Amino acid sequence: MSRIVQKYGGSSVATAEKIQHVARRIAERRRAGDDVVAVVSAMGDTTDDLIDLAAKINAKPNQREMDVLLSTGEIVSSTLLSMALDAEGLDAISLTGAQAGIRTDEVYGRARIAEIQTERMERELAAGRVVIVAGFQGISENFDTTTLGRGGSDTTAVALAAALKADACEIYTDVPGIFTADPRVCPEARPLRDIGYEEMLELATTGARVMHARAVEVGAIYNVDILVASTFDASAPGTLIHGETTMEQGNKVRGIAHQDHIAKVTVRGVPDQPGIAARIFEPLATAGVSVDTIVQNASVEDLTDLTFTVAPGDLDKATEVINGLLAQIGGGGIVTAPDLGTVSVVGTGMASAPGYAARMFKTLFDNQINIEMISTSDIRITCVVEGARVGDAVRALHAAFELDRG
Amino acid sequence: MSRIVQKYGGSSVATAEKIQHVARRIAERRRAGDDVVAVVSAMGDTTDDLIDLAAKINAKPNQREMDVLLSTGEIVSSTLLSMALDAEGLDAISLTGAQAGIRTDEVYGRARIAEIQTERMERELAAGRVVIVAGFQGISENFDTTTLGRGGSDTTAVALAAALKADACEIYTDVPGIFTADPRVCPEARPLRDIGYEEMLELATTGARVMHARAVEVGAIYNVDILVASTFDASAPGTLIHGETTMEQGNKVRGIAHQDHIAKVTVRGVPDQPGIAARIFEPLATAGVSVDTIVQNASVEDLTDLTFTVAPGDLDKATEVINGLLAQIGGGGIVTAPDLGTVSVVGTGMASAPGYAARMFKTLFDNQINIEMISTSDIRITCVVEGARVGDAVRALHAAFELDRG
Repeated sequence: MSRIVQKYGGSSVATAEKIQHVARRIAERRRAGDDVVAVVSAMGDTTDDLIDLAAKINAKPNQREMDVLLSTGEIVSSTLLSMALDAEGLDAISLTGAQAGIRTDEVYGRARIAEIQTERMERELAAGRVVIVAGFQGISENFDTTTLGRGGSDTTAVALAAALKADACEIYTDVPGIFTADPRVCPEARPLRDIGYEEMLELATTGARVMHARAVEVGAIYNVDILVASTFDASAPGTLIHGETTMEQGNKVRGIAHQDHIAKVTVRGVPDQPGIAARIFEPLATAGVSVDTIVQNASVEDLTDLTFTVAPGDLDKATEVINGLLAQIGGGGIVTAPDLGTVSVVGTGMASAPGYAARMFKTLFDNQINIEMISTSDIRITCVVEGARVGDAVRALHAAFELDRG
Repeated sequence: MSRIVQKYGGSSVATAEKIQHVARRIAERRRAGDDVVAVVSAMGDTTDDLIDLAAKINAKPNQREMDVLLSTGEIVSSTLLSMALDAEGLDAISLTGAQAGIRTDEVYGRARIAEIQTERMERELAAGRVVIVAGFQGISENFDTTTLGRGGSDTTAVALAAALKADACEIYTDVPGIFTADPRVCPEARPLRDIGYEEMLELATTGARVMHARAVEVGAIYNVDILVASTFDASAPGTLIHGETTMEQGNKVRGIAHQDHIAKVTVRGVPDQPGIAARIFEPLATAGVSVDTIVQNASVEDLTDLTFTVAPGDLDKATEVINGLLAQIGGGGIVTAPDLGTVSVVGTGMASAPGYAARMFKTLFDNQINIEMISTSDIRITCVVEGARVGDAVRALHAAFELDRG
């Protein structure tokens, strides 16, 4: 008898019929003798619908209220799944984040889990019940509802698996696992059998939206093996995210991630002196502009170029802020590019083997794709390219690194 | 400076625009210097929609889960109203039933309030905030969500007014007060300026759906004056429900209530012996049939007729239960009538003045409306009549008791 934590995403519980399907899958596991804790997201587009409703009432809604509002989506689906299990003849109980003992800090909209008090869940499991937990939410010291941010139900599931010392954590979604690239862009993409935490983190933060990055972090810290698999295709094996040596050693690049819709801002001729970055990025943060990658070029005659990427919707605001600063910081001017994207190659093996960056750049050059910007980590190389060429870049790199061969 | 508890019903918060209207009304009061606690119902048809969704998944959903599910409707509207107040420049905070300290027993679906722990509300009021409380819900000792039953937000508001020692409790709805009869049935009906608790209770339990009966009970126990008024017509004075001598002494009948869709079951020739009622009504209760009025006729030759009313949807089940009992209890047969209604005259003054019943019966007779069944309390006379004649009966009685004269 094992103890299993499962998580079902919004598309897996989007309708009454899909909730009943999920209930049947849980019932199979339960009848096979396993204890099951299931974490659910809000049904389908519920969260977006609630955000739209709030926007009609207040263009900049208070984040505490927003968290209470959004938390209801997961509460609804958790009760419906509990009812569906009851209809399958199983004893089940839904718990809100608060009832499941998920204590967080009070940073509304992106709270972090501080502690999980498992007494209630343990009591319900001991009573033979399937425990359904509303994902994405917790409760602060002040007894206020918090949410963990977009995709937070993944984090809920992995954190519960750690706290409950579960034998397995299974993330069920509408795709059969983690792919070598986005199959909508690259038809040759294939699901990976397994992947390391760090590789998965890099893929998640550079565009593979299957898995929430913070969930992978929690998995890495508590060494929770995470299976990402399909809700609807039980025959697909899924992808195991874990910390052990990968079983697929033949290829050191594990996947190609990409992001559409990136804008770039270059501040030219900035005096290369201490504190200059802070004087640029603090006003941007104050104005609510979220900056992604930052690159500073080597200094020429004590002047440097500083380039960063932002969401296209923030480009006008970023331009306005920088233009207001130019005289003060002594910058030479601003150049912007509104329609870019990123493409990244990711793989742990890359760190110890040279030549991957060169192969990436050559592949892009061979396909006449211009590189606008480069950033790297130990296990990732990211290039910013023209938005219209992102798909071509993904396909070319997928072939160049022989990811179609498995 | 006064402390006011207000309640806004589902039709008052049915859309983003209506929520903004409610926010402006609250803002006026707050700016005039009053402390405001506002209780809200779920938006429009939300509760019915959630019930329908649950029914798709489980024909007989677990009541604990149902309570958690339904409680989300009021949580959603409370956060949206808080956001709307924020947009009006007011400091506001939404509280769930649990956060507002509304402790109940654990009778899911119709929980009763055991205690209200006001510390959090007092703290928020002291900080100058408008406090928005999600109506209809509370929390049990076991930290489980409960609901107070249909219309329970009225009860929330009156109970909060009592616990917070508020100066006024105002129930805002889509009609301008309590009418002498349902204006949709009786065009001559007019709003009452005031009414006593007991009269209001009788009106509420016999068909005047403006006010939840349990809310009136709580008002009577804690002597909370309750103003029922229109959300949208600020010029209408509304109706004050209170315990003092009525200001309108001219007429001892205060209102005509009615109910459509009542079915009647008569068990004929039942032996008139102790315990017979229990042997009939216990199996009905076990079968989930909710019985309303019960009348037992005088005994003839040790046999009696026992008549009761049920919802038409329960008539088949009631017939089945009774037929299964007839041989055992020695009953003579069963007669049912599926399409009846009730009409009631209500007024405290009736208790001490004779002739009201006679006038009621004569009015119905003059209009050739047959009386199928009669039941009375100190301040109410109810007649069961043919369903198709309920409207005629209401209009005739409204005229006969001169309720149009004010």
